[in-house]
Order: sequence, then structure tokens, then C-alpha cells
Amino acid sequence: MSPSAITPPGGSEASVSLSEVGEFALIARVTTDRRQPASTLLGPGDDAAVVAAPDGRVVACTDVLVQGVHFRLDWSTPEQVGRKAAAANLADVAAMGAVPTALLVGLACPPSTPVDQLEALADGLWAEASSAGAGVVGGDVASASTIVVSVTALGSLQGREPVTRSGARPGDVIAFAGRLGFSAAGLAVLGRGFRSPAALVNAHRSPEPPYAAGPQAAAAGATSMIDVSDGLLADLAHVARASDVVLDLRSAAFTVPDKLSEIAGALGADPLEWILTGGEDHALVATFGADTVLPEGWTAVGHVTDGAPQVLVDGVPHEGPAGWEHFHGP
Amino acid sequence: MSPSAITPPGGSEASVSLSEVGEFALIARVTTDRRQPASTLLGPGDDAAVVAAPDGRVVACTDVLVQGVHFRLDWSTPEQVGRKAAAANLADVAAMGAVPTALLVGLACPPSTPVDQLEALADGLWAEASSAGAGVVGGDVASASTIVVSVTALGSLQGREPVTRSGARPGDVIAFAGRLGFSAAGLAVLGRGFRSPAALVNAHRSPEPPYAAGPQAAAAGATSMIDVSDGLLADLAHVARASDVVLDLRSAAFTVPDKLSEIAGALGADPLEWILTGGEDHALVATFGADTVLPEGWTAVGHVTDGAPQVLVDGVPHEGPAGWEHFHGP
Repeated sequence: MSPSAITPPGGSEASVSLSEVGEFALIARVTTDRRQPASTLLGPGDDAAVVAAPDGRVVACTDVLVQGVHFRLDWSTPEQVGRKAAAANLADVAAMGAVPTALLVGLACPPSTPVDQLEALADGLWAEASSAGAGVVGGDVASASTIVVSVTALGSLQGREPVTRSGARPGDVIAFAGRLGFSAAGLAVLGRGFRSPAALVNAHRSPEPPYAAGPQAAAAGATSMIDVSDGLLADLAHVARASDVVLDLRSAAFTVPDKLSEIAGALGADPLEWILTGGEDHALVATFGADTVLPEGWTAVGHVTDGAPQVLVDGVPHEGPAGWEHFHGP
Repeated sequence: MSPSAITPPGGSEASVSLSEVGEFALIARVTTDRRQPASTLLGPGDDAAVVAAPDGRVVACTDVLVQGVHFRLDWSTPEQVGRKAAAANLADVAAMGAVPTALLVGLACPPSTPVDQLEALADGLWAEASSAGAGVVGGDVASASTIVVSVTALGSLQGREPVTRSGARPGDVIAFAGRLGFSAAGLAVLGRGFRSPAALVNAHRSPEPPYAAGPQAAAAGATSMIDVSDGLLADLAHVARASDVVLDLRSAAFTVPDKLSEIAGALGADPLEWILTGGEDHALVATFGADTVLPEGWTAVGHVTDGAPQVLVDGVPHEGPAGWEHFHGP
């Protein structure tokens, strides 16, 4: 590729599209000079990568983000989209009690997509993966009419048993770690055409899941765990069903952060509603035996009882939508 | 979900869309009653799956297929698309010398997509995965304007070292296993508006990679290996560059199958061109030390020499396009 091919007369490299540089040049650009963690035994550049799985098992999950559905490039930078796509998956790994080791990225995008956007997306994926101790070990790119980012995350259980959704038992305490309601508040702000407060808007643009809290909860003996991607009530409903228990939250146990109550006041919204039903913060919520000393960063917010599986708030079903489902079934 | 919701009056279940049944009902439909292999320690239904990695390492790769680019639903059934998406990834695992263990699937599709199409796609993914000994252990579905299938495959090296693209040495023999040119011939047939011969058309619709040949080559001491996804010459070019060698194919070593020569005659095409440049058959091509007894199913078709990295046919560069690149760079 000659320099003139990537810098048209009067233009800048920023305007170069994927179709101009080609698939392999893009892959070379986004994979060179990256520092792989020790768990990456063979990185990008071959038919497949090889990743360490020290205890003979690997945790694996996949999440798909679509432009216009999960992100808007006028609301988020490509780097934030990359961080968000990585975070959604890394949080799933953490919710099993595992430590993330690797990401693989399947990207579909229009041939006209500027290469600098794709490099920024890769930077975001790398930054978030690195923050969780993982590397980006592989991927693929194909042309499509809209941007679709499909991320697979791998992780290591470090010899522990996975913490599933099905282990909550009557008498257990419900606790969460991380932030709740911040992304929903940020989305509400953006939806009104505002760009601040930055803390909330950025929480929507790229969440900050408490990755370390997952393995810590597992080590402390968490009986069940899930990450809050669709909303606390919606995600706890999966735990209630899988565990065949009632999960009863105590609304007074949630301390509403000042940032949430301030902006809720300004927008005429209920901050507790954001906390209970807002998705995409990727907080972790888990159950622990009643006698368990909760690890640092975990806050008790309810308890588990016997009965037909459901999620209650202060002993009664919560009114209104519980959270987000992509395809609304009956 | 009531029965009436999935069978409208006078209609059939075939006409029900994803948006009518919802994301979670779809996932339930495509995951129930599947037989997982022993390597699936925890299957779908939680934040992540857990897959066995017996030798403490996992092979992982991702491939993206896009409607209108990699498949057409008027040319292929959804089940064939599923098989093809799985095969592309499982072949990458085999090309490392590994045995496939698991697939994860990121699916983006319009909410109007009929559920029976998605079930058939899942059936195809499952059928192909099962044929290679793997299970489908996880996935995600999101709405998008076109169908994008992103598949991640995991595999086990069974204690062997991975066979990369960089190990070819001067003096080595080049050999392949599987079919070459069949998919390209099938595509040529379909492109002329024909639907037969079935063997070629079906080869394009769903390839039949020689999965077992990968681990067998590795066990026999293959020095490099790659799967033929873009075309034999195009993919060997990666090996030539990574190994810093010349790969010289001998055209007379390729036996042109009768099916290819017959249809090439009818279409006025050169069957050797399909063999050298046709993609998507996912044959495996590898290099072996000159004294290696090739495993069954492998055919020697050239040798490795010293020099500036390139691929030759009968000692000279091949004229014409070498294969398929999604985004054509300069």
C-alpha cells in the first residue's frame, strides 16, 4: 500500500475507508504493537489463537452489539463502543466467578466505514480487555450495511466451581457490587438532548463493571450470581426462575447516589426506578449464605425466600416494566 | 406464550417472527433437547458456558458470515447457512491441529425474521458442530437490518503443539486434504441460474471440511497448516509470508475430479482455476518434512523452496486473481 493510497490529495488519513485499505491491512493495523497478557499463548495472525486454561476448563460467552440498537455513533465515540462491547462480555465472565483471559471479535461493517473509526473501536476493545487482564486474541471482519460487533470472552475459574444462576437458597442474602442506574440515567440525559453530567453520560457510553468483584464473590462462597445487563429486576428474574426461589429486595437498602438523585430531580424521574430497571451498567448481583461476610464492595439489598419464583420489592411485585428485551415476546 | 400466539388463525407456525415470540423464547427453542458432548461442562442458560480444556490450553477463533455477502437465502436453506457458518470456524480449529469442542454464536437479524428460519439455522449449526464432535454452548441474538452470523469455535490440542502458518521449511512437501474447487464450481452453477449438479451446488451451500485430517496431520508432524477459506493460492500466500519461503505447486499433481471437469466443460471454465483460487471448501493444506509418510487422505501437490515469499504454480507466479478478499485494498 503506497502512502498516497491512504492520504488522498487534500484529505487526511481519517477519511480513508475500510474498502480503500482492505481487510488484511486493517487487521495488521489493529493487531500490531498490542501487549498480550501471559495467558495468550498464541495471539492473532493464525487460523486460531491459543489461550491458557490453567485448571483444564474455559469459561466462554458471546454478546452482540448493533449500531442503532446498542449504540449510536453520534452519542458515543467508536472507542466507547469498543469498551462497551468488551465490558458486556467481560462482565459475563466475572459473573461466573471467573477471571477474563481473552476476547475474540467478529465485526461486520459497511466498506465505507472510516478506518480510524475501526482503529478507535479496536483501541476501546483493547483498553477494556486490558483493564480486566485479558487480551484480544482473534477476530474477523466482513462487510454489512450496518455495524455489528460480536464479542466472545474467555475466562479462567482458577480452580473454583462456576457460580451459576441456580444456586440461590431460601435464607440467602442478596447483594450487589458496582453501579446501578447510572447508564439508564445517562441514556435519559442523552435522550433529552443534553451531554452532561459527564459521569452519567459516560456511564451509558462505556460502563465500568466491577470485574474483580466476581471472583471475590465466588471465593467468598456466593451461591448464585448474574451480571445486570438488562436491569436488576429483569436479571434477578432469571436467578429466581433458575433457583426456584423468591428474591425480595428492600428498597431502603439502596443508597441513591447524589448524582442520580440530582439529575432525577431535574428530569422529573424516579432514581430508584433507574436502579431497579436500568440496564447496561453490568453491576454484579449475587446471593450469599446468611452468615457470609460479604467481600468489600458488596452491599446487601434483600434476601431469598421460599415460594413460586419471582422478584419482589419490599414484599410486593414491582409495577412497570422490569427491563429491556430485544425482541418483545408476548 | 399461548398456542394461539404462535399459530395465527389460518396461518402456520412457519410465519411467526422473532419479534412475536421474543428473544428468550427463541433461545429456549433452539437450546432445548440438544445433546452436548462430554466436553461441555456447563451448557447454555447462564451468563457463560464452561468447556473442558484438558491440556490446560484452548484454541479459539471467530468468523463472521453476512447475508448477501457469504450466503443468499434464495440459494441456501437456513440450515445450510448454519452448517456453513459452523464449518468455517471448525475448519480453522482443525487447521491448528486441534479437535473442535464448542461453538458460540452471535446472531443479528431483523425482528421480522421467521422463527422457523432461525430454528433451522440453529439446526445447521448443531448438525455441523456435532459432526466435528463439538457442542453449541452459548450465544446471543440482537436485532439488525440484515442477518449477521458470528461464530466462535473452541478446540483442544490434546497435548500437541499448535500447527501454525510459520513452520514451513525449504525441502518440505506441500499436501492437502479435503475438496478444492467444489464450492467455486457450485457458485458458478448457481450464478448461471442452474440448481444442479447437486454435488457441486451443495458443496457451495455447505462445505464438508476434513476435520479429522487436521489433528492427524499434526500428529504426523505437519510443519505448517492452514484451511482454504479464500482460495488455495491466497491462503498459501499467508503461509509463504509467515514462513518466509516459496511454495511451489505442481499443477499435474492435482487430479481434477470428474464432476469438476464435466461442469467446467459445460460452462467453458477451467477446473484447475477453481481448484487453485476457489474459496469456501475449507480443505486443509499443510507442509510436511520430505520424509514424512503422509496420513491417509492427504495428497502431495508441491514443495517448499528458499526465496522471497511467494506462491508459484509450476515454478511461475499464477496469473489472475488469487482468491477472495472482502474489502479490496490497493
